[in-house]
Amino acid sequence: MARVNNQIILAERPQGLPDDNTFEFVKKAVEDVKEDQILIKTLYVSVDPYMRGRMENAESYIEPFKLNEVIEGSSIGEVIESKSDQFKTGDVVTGMFGWQEYYVAGENEVRQIDPSIAPITTNLHILGMTGLTSYFGLLDIGKPKEGETVVISGAAGSVGSTVGQIAKIKGARVVGIAGSDEKISFLKDELNFDGGINYRATDNIKDDLQRICPDGVDVYFDNVGGEISDAVMTQLNRYARIPVCGAISSYNKEEQDLGPRVQQTLIKKSALMQGFTVGNYSDRFKEGAKQLGQWLQEGKLTYRETIREGFENIPGAFLDLFRGKNIGKLLVKVGEREYV
Amino acid sequence: MARVNNQIILAERPQGLPDDNTFEFVKKAVEDVKEDQILIKTLYVSVDPYMRGRMENAESYIEPFKLNEVIEGSSIGEVIESKSDQFKTGDVVTGMFGWQEYYVAGENEVRQIDPSIAPITTNLHILGMTGLTSYFGLLDIGKPKEGETVVISGAAGSVGSTVGQIAKIKGARVVGIAGSDEKISFLKDELNFDGGINYRATDNIKDDLQRICPDGVDVYFDNVGGEISDAVMTQLNRYARIPVCGAISSYNKEEQDLGPRVQQTLIKKSALMQGFTVGNYSDRFKEGAKQLGQWLQEGKLTYRETIREGFENIPGAFLDLFRGKNIGKLLVKVGEREYV
Repeated sequence: MARVNNQIILAERPQGLPDDNTFEFVKKAVEDVKEDQILIKTLYVSVDPYMRGRMENAESYIEPFKLNEVIEGSSIGEVIESKSDQFKTGDVVTGMFGWQEYYVAGENEVRQIDPSIAPITTNLHILGMTGLTSYFGLLDIGKPKEGETVVISGAAGSVGSTVGQIAKIKGARVVGIAGSDEKISFLKDELNFDGGINYRATDNIKDDLQRICPDGVDVYFDNVGGEISDAVMTQLNRYARIPVCGAISSYNKEEQDLGPRVQQTLIKKSALMQGFTVGNYSDRFKEGAKQLGQWLQEGKLTYRETIREGFENIPGAFLDLFRGKNIGKLLVKVGEREYV
Repeated sequence: MARVNNQIILAERPQGLPDDNTFEFVKKAVEDVKEDQILIKTLYVSVDPYMRGRMENAESYIEPFKLNEVIEGSSIGEVIESKSDQFKTGDVVTGMFGWQEYYVAGENEVRQIDPSIAPITTNLHILGMTGLTSYFGLLDIGKPKEGETVVISGAAGSVGSTVGQIAKIKGARVVGIAGSDEKISFLKDELNFDGGINYRATDNIKDDLQRICPDGVDVYFDNVGGEISDAVMTQLNRYARIPVCGAISSYNKEEQDLGPRVQQTLIKKSALMQGFTVGNYSDRFKEGAKQLGQWLQEGKLTYRETIREGFENIPGAFLDLFRGKNIGKLLVKVGEREYV
């Protein structure tokens, strides 16, 4: 009898915030492993804000999720059966196999992880896509110079917290905007940010920025969009750079997202805004991963991860991303290793 | 008895559109010419949209005009008295001496013009600041490639019409947005633009763009901001570049200028928006002016200028800029040469 594979599929496209009707749990039989294939048991799955965008049936930089198919996303798993020369049972791999307990993969669909460098879960964040997003967005677009002021929104998230640490490595003064005092403490006490603003505890982010960034803002790493970004835009210095990484404040909006037009500010400040996704840099991933791994091993980078337990808790973890609850990277552990 | 110098000063800062109360005509005595100075008789003055920004008492990339002082701006004049070794009477010069009939200049305040290259008025547009604005904004930020689609708003103005021609030189497909059928004819028939949209004669700029730019928009040279730019933003291709040069639609607005936030679009398209002013490129002006002069002499560039007559008509010409009346560069002739 075939093994049962629990999967979570996209049952309907959400209007606004996803809810219980968005997802459906289904059971499928695990397929047979053919020549040059491996069977992976999922250990951890990643939940990420960008996945909300893939739930829309709209043209974007990445394919929309298909209705009634497994939600795709970064996961880590263990090879528990191999008909490939390149993998053996017990190997740990990462790939886009998403929200399911088992996956039969071709050799080129996954990448092997070396568990000796760092905990394997780091491959879903600081040594994976969010780390690379931070690295390329900050260094290729933001280009912080020593002594400049870097402001980060969504600063306590997986991307934001890494961006701030890289900016510190580059000698910048770093200020984070996040949504709780706990997060601000994390940024200042654990990551050595120079300042922080809890946007939920202030009436006027602009005034706070003026106080905390008296020399203005040279780089604004934007993870959120919306009114927080409107406020930061008023504090830009000449030749400011804005890597536009995320707009989580807008993702679940059903009405049009209106705000002050940016053109006059960009002209007055000769400022640059550039949107990007990590995939733009795929030909430089090795360079980025190597540098991130080195900084991690040297103790120049650290991270916080929150690990939920249980396959059934994946949708809830995903929804929590939009409630501003998590510090650092949010993962869900869905299985135990069998070969260690 | 000293010569009388008619001047136009900033009498009060406008709220919204400038009007008769904004300016005041005054008479001053022309100062004596001292050692190493020259006396310039103004021949032509330039009226430019960016001058509206200088009427605000707000921090910007350029100093605000001072109340009760002469309106500063690019002008052309003839040297009618010289106590400098570097200039002789009859020389034609350009500088920022602005809206007055005479000006006593130091040697480094003006630049001599060679009238043999092109009509001297070209130094107030295609061989001057607007030409350089077009050149650097398009080539340094827009970076059009052969076969790409370049869309220009404010396309029939001095900057827009030059941008389009440079984009054609670079092998791009060029579409202009402007406010009259006469302007669209000018762009298509005289400047060989590939397409044009009269935004006053359409209900839906977005639909027009989809039709006229079936391959999307790779470069959007933005002179206007506002709803026209909102529409173009919906048609961007991946890796689109947007040099943000002007926002004339907003300059006279008293309320906040609201529109769709751009962050999500920038992310989805990995697009870049960059504000600039020509002064950013001052160390490359020679390169730009040389190339523009060469293209002009080779017949690859052309221009349209509208010349009003009479010192008393300067404020009216300036206000017409915001009524969308002019094609190409608007100048005012205020004096005749004495030495030719």
